[in-house]
Amino acid sequence: MKHNEFSLKDAVAILERTPASLSALLKGLPETLTRATEGDATWSPYDVIGHLIHGELTDWIPRARHIMSGETQPFEAFDRTAQFTQSQGQSLAELLKTFAELRRENVAALLAMNLTDDDLGRGGVHPELGAVTLGQLLATWVVHDLDHVTQVARTMAKVYTDAVGPWSAYLSILRDRTQA
Amino acid sequence: MKHNEFSLKDAVAILERTPASLSALLKGLPETLTRATEGDATWSPYDVIGHLIHGELTDWIPRARHIMSGETQPFEAFDRTAQFTQSQGQSLAELLKTFAELRRENVAALLAMNLTDDDLGRGGVHPELGAVTLGQLLATWVVHDLDHVTQVARTMAKVYTDAVGPWSAYLSILRDRTQA
Repeated sequence: MKHNEFSLKDAVAILERTPASLSALLKGLPETLTRATEGDATWSPYDVIGHLIHGELTDWIPRARHIMSGETQPFEAFDRTAQFTQSQGQSLAELLKTFAELRRENVAALLAMNLTDDDLGRGGVHPELGAVTLGQLLATWVVHDLDHVTQVARTMAKVYTDAVGPWSAYLSILRDRTQA
Repeated sequence: MKHNEFSLKDAVAILERTPASLSALLKGLPETLTRATEGDATWSPYDVIGHLIHGELTDWIPRARHIMSGETQPFEAFDRTAQFTQSQGQSLAELLKTFAELRRENVAALLAMNLTDDDLGRGGVHPELGAVTLGQLLATWVVHDLDHVTQVARTMAKVYTDAVGPWSAYLSILRDRTQA
């Protein structure tokens, strides 16, 4: 089942739930789980929360405002590894709190834009992808959240790759996005 | 990073968080999201919660007790589609509540077993997989939870497959477990 029509209300319903979902998944777990990765050059749950914070600061709402301003220059490129310097010294609990605060502010900012269906069709220019719309940007924000929720759960699951023994055959998650 | 030693404490920490994670992800969302699937013969988030309830009733703790009793007969096979009849007429909110209650009881039952490291090495017979251990069963319970958390998030993400436009190129979740 796919939406042909993007529902801003449904998108906001997911966006406002993500901090609580990630806190419920992660808060209080030991670092054997929250600092685990899927292998070289993959991210731990801790890294993911830092990445989501950077998105709140520099990506979604700034780009939505860029489109609404009628600006024809491409968006600024998003830094996908900023969290490796920006999260330094912070606990996971602190990052989860910061993410929740920023997301609350950004959902409020989104709602305050009072976007119409016509607005969702307004265009911007992505530095790599070219022509995009505001509606596509907001749908991407939602899917990006859900992608990182799955990443966090998958990364913790893979900690148990050996521990499950023969049951591995039934647990596809242990092979999802596995590097060759 | 993989555990070579299975930590019962860490496993319980994940098991006791799953109901809250799924409630945070799902509670109050519209059926366009909670009843969406990934295509024919795939499950909606609603179906997944019913499946998890059936596991609480018939799989994990009953099999753990079966092993601890020294029983040498194979486990009873698990019914993977029981939720299609058992969930009938129940709202998602009701299913989430039932799952949370059963999980709380089952975590308490697990802790009351006071399992030792030696117990985790005790063996049972799976009807298809053959020889397994109690530790493997409990690790599988954890990974099974996380697999279904990813399934729920992935299924909702795919509702936005068309809506994201060109950003699809960056959103691998839209292609994970996609049927050919």
